[in-house]
Amino acid sequence: MERFISCISVLGVLLAASFCQHAEAGKLRFSSDGQFKIVQVADMHYADGAHTKCLDVLPEEMATCSDLNTTAFQWRMIKQEHPDLVVFTGDNIFQRDSSNATASLIAAFAPVIEARIPWAAVLGNHDQEGHMTREEVMAFIVKMDYSMAQMNPNFLHGDRTTIDGYGNYIIEVEGPAGSMFENKSLLNLYMVDSGDYSFIPQVSYYDWIKSNQQVWLQQASAEIQVPQFPSALLNLRPRPELLDESMHLKAYRGVKPRPQTKAASALAFHHIPIPESFTTPNASNLGEKNEASGSPSLNSGFLTTLITMGDVQAAFTGHDHLNDYCGAADGPLFLCYSGGFGYHAYGKAGWPRRSRVITAYLNGNAASWDDVSHIQTYKRLDDDGFTKIDEQTLYTNYVLSPE
Amino acid sequence: MERFISCISVLGVLLAASFCQHAEAGKLRFSSDGQFKIVQVADMHYADGAHTKCLDVLPEEMATCSDLNTTAFQWRMIKQEHPDLVVFTGDNIFQRDSSNATASLIAAFAPVIEARIPWAAVLGNHDQEGHMTREEVMAFIVKMDYSMAQMNPNFLHGDRTTIDGYGNYIIEVEGPAGSMFENKSLLNLYMVDSGDYSFIPQVSYYDWIKSNQQVWLQQASAEIQVPQFPSALLNLRPRPELLDESMHLKAYRGVKPRPQTKAASALAFHHIPIPESFTTPNASNLGEKNEASGSPSLNSGFLTTLITMGDVQAAFTGHDHLNDYCGAADGPLFLCYSGGFGYHAYGKAGWPRRSRVITAYLNGNAASWDDVSHIQTYKRLDDDGFTKIDEQTLYTNYVLSPE
Repeated sequence: MERFISCISVLGVLLAASFCQHAEAGKLRFSSDGQFKIVQVADMHYADGAHTKCLDVLPEEMATCSDLNTTAFQWRMIKQEHPDLVVFTGDNIFQRDSSNATASLIAAFAPVIEARIPWAAVLGNHDQEGHMTREEVMAFIVKMDYSMAQMNPNFLHGDRTTIDGYGNYIIEVEGPAGSMFENKSLLNLYMVDSGDYSFIPQVSYYDWIKSNQQVWLQQASAEIQVPQFPSALLNLRPRPELLDESMHLKAYRGVKPRPQTKAASALAFHHIPIPESFTTPNASNLGEKNEASGSPSLNSGFLTTLITMGDVQAAFTGHDHLNDYCGAADGPLFLCYSGGFGYHAYGKAGWPRRSRVITAYLNGNAASWDDVSHIQTYKRLDDDGFTKIDEQTLYTNYVLSPE
Repeated sequence: MERFISCISVLGVLLAASFCQHAEAGKLRFSSDGQFKIVQVADMHYADGAHTKCLDVLPEEMATCSDLNTTAFQWRMIKQEHPDLVVFTGDNIFQRDSSNATASLIAAFAPVIEARIPWAAVLGNHDQEGHMTREEVMAFIVKMDYSMAQMNPNFLHGDRTTIDGYGNYIIEVEGPAGSMFENKSLLNLYMVDSGDYSFIPQVSYYDWIKSNQQVWLQQASAEIQVPQFPSALLNLRPRPELLDESMHLKAYRGVKPRPQTKAASALAFHHIPIPESFTTPNASNLGEKNEASGSPSLNSGFLTTLITMGDVQAAFTGHDHLNDYCGAADGPLFLCYSGGFGYHAYGKAGWPRRSRVITAYLNGNAASWDDVSHIQTYKRLDDDGFTKIDEQTLYTNYVLSPE
């Protein structure tokens, strides 16, 4: 509701229908053409804007290159792709080189906010390396305009009421306005904090997604996937026709659902890749593997959790700037890198910064939109031609004869 | 208390002091010489006793070999080793070949019960392959005489009140009677159900230890490791000298503790090995690796959990009858196989059935027992010489100048 009011007050009578249609009361929904497009921005490493030099660009580019090139690339993606959501997968700022962390955060996310595009973020391992803690950085992100980020769920396990990390939350994308699914999620986005560094002295390098985060995610996913009958609602307006078909109901979450034969699709986003992201067979990969993975040296079982959940079609990470491939793991479930986006992040001179685009399409047509039919992805290179590469399908669920 | 009464009533005036000293009120404790010895029995595959033939023994042994050889081997281990506890690590019975599962269970555990030795068990993947479910098998085991097994903890997470599997429990081994630690655990045994078969169609083979079991175990371990001050107790009998030293208190759990500088040691037992059991470097192994591992095809993060817990020195599994090595994994933490014990289980003719012995020793002396100083292990082969092999140290924490 806060976001809704903010949307009205900021835009007033000049209200941009395209955004507020998507974001009423903080909601996201598929557009009227049955599509939902996400742009992934990995590893901006934003610091002090014009004062922050680039890393690993060509010698002739160095003199004029700064964080502003990262800003320009974000604008370029927005104008070219018109995303419904931008997901920043961590290392959004490089706080070690930032003279003012909140200023860096404001500058880093300025384009999506100015463009009034809903956005979400998870933390990387560099976001907190300064005066602001991980909790403070995420609390700030949660409050920024058009941010869909949330801190953590109130999740009761044992005698604790929350889970590890900051910024573990779920974004639901509902059906197109006016459709039978306008109050039901058709695509769930699982945002997970993969931590920063190992806290165990004898285990080196990077952190991992903890068991308690995984239990929460499994339970949240299971809740989303099974039929739910809010009794108060049913009392107000009995819908016996839904009860009769309860065996076929999946992902019932709203007030005006139609029985579905499949649960909603889901995608996961986190910063540090899991070990299997790197060991995934190359044969099924589309993209490049140019560096050893910075995945944790321990396997905390997150792939097993994603597969067990059953609704996740792909997980998207950052962290390794020179890896940008998508490969199929067990499940089948795609594990995808995006490749580095930011100019103050390490990279490879002559190998353009890049961004991943992910689009989900619905079965059916304007008369009757149904569940997700397929999910596609490709990348854009920040080169002269704004080259589109590596288009591939991550999931198919075509219904040949929609009702 | 139930076990205490049972102990009295069964044994009456002939009460075997050696057992009831260890097991008063269902408690286990280090003996007066500061030692606690565990015999591990892996994969008995017990069925119908004399009517059940052996697998993979020498041709000349086949005619007279049956489940009774497994029984005889169990008696031989008891008489040779005088264990304080026998741990059965699953596939205790092979229910598929059993005409009466409860009879198989009674026969399988008969020696330890008759010898009045406390014992514990976890389930394997073959225990339930008949009329009795996993839950029923474990419920039966829990109620058997001298069994230390428990079903599951009441563990609240989300809106559920228990965890996956049957037979997830902790056995505490307290200090020697009359010592300062007679009411405090010095060695915790974590018993975990590793399930049976993958429940996900596209994931083949064996099951894995779930995230919710791991969250429970981490929390239980953390509770055991931090100081606890039962307020009711403190009100009855204030002990300000303990409060003053609270920064040094570890693993405070009883009514008469002494401040310790280290948490209790811990060992884990489960049936199906984790993937790292097999990928552990051979260089540090002592024992044989004669078959590919039947570990799950997915990694559910259990090693990460064990390492995170910080108190676990080794994990002991069965399942792969022809592997009997102990190898060091990250942590450092030893992952140990036992090798097959049962004659109706597959094996290798001429390669004797075997059993692992694990002994924990305390620092200090009879005047002042302290925490665990070291943990040793070796195996016994069921051959003519009852050969003892592969003795090795799994953990050292020697205090050179005990108080």
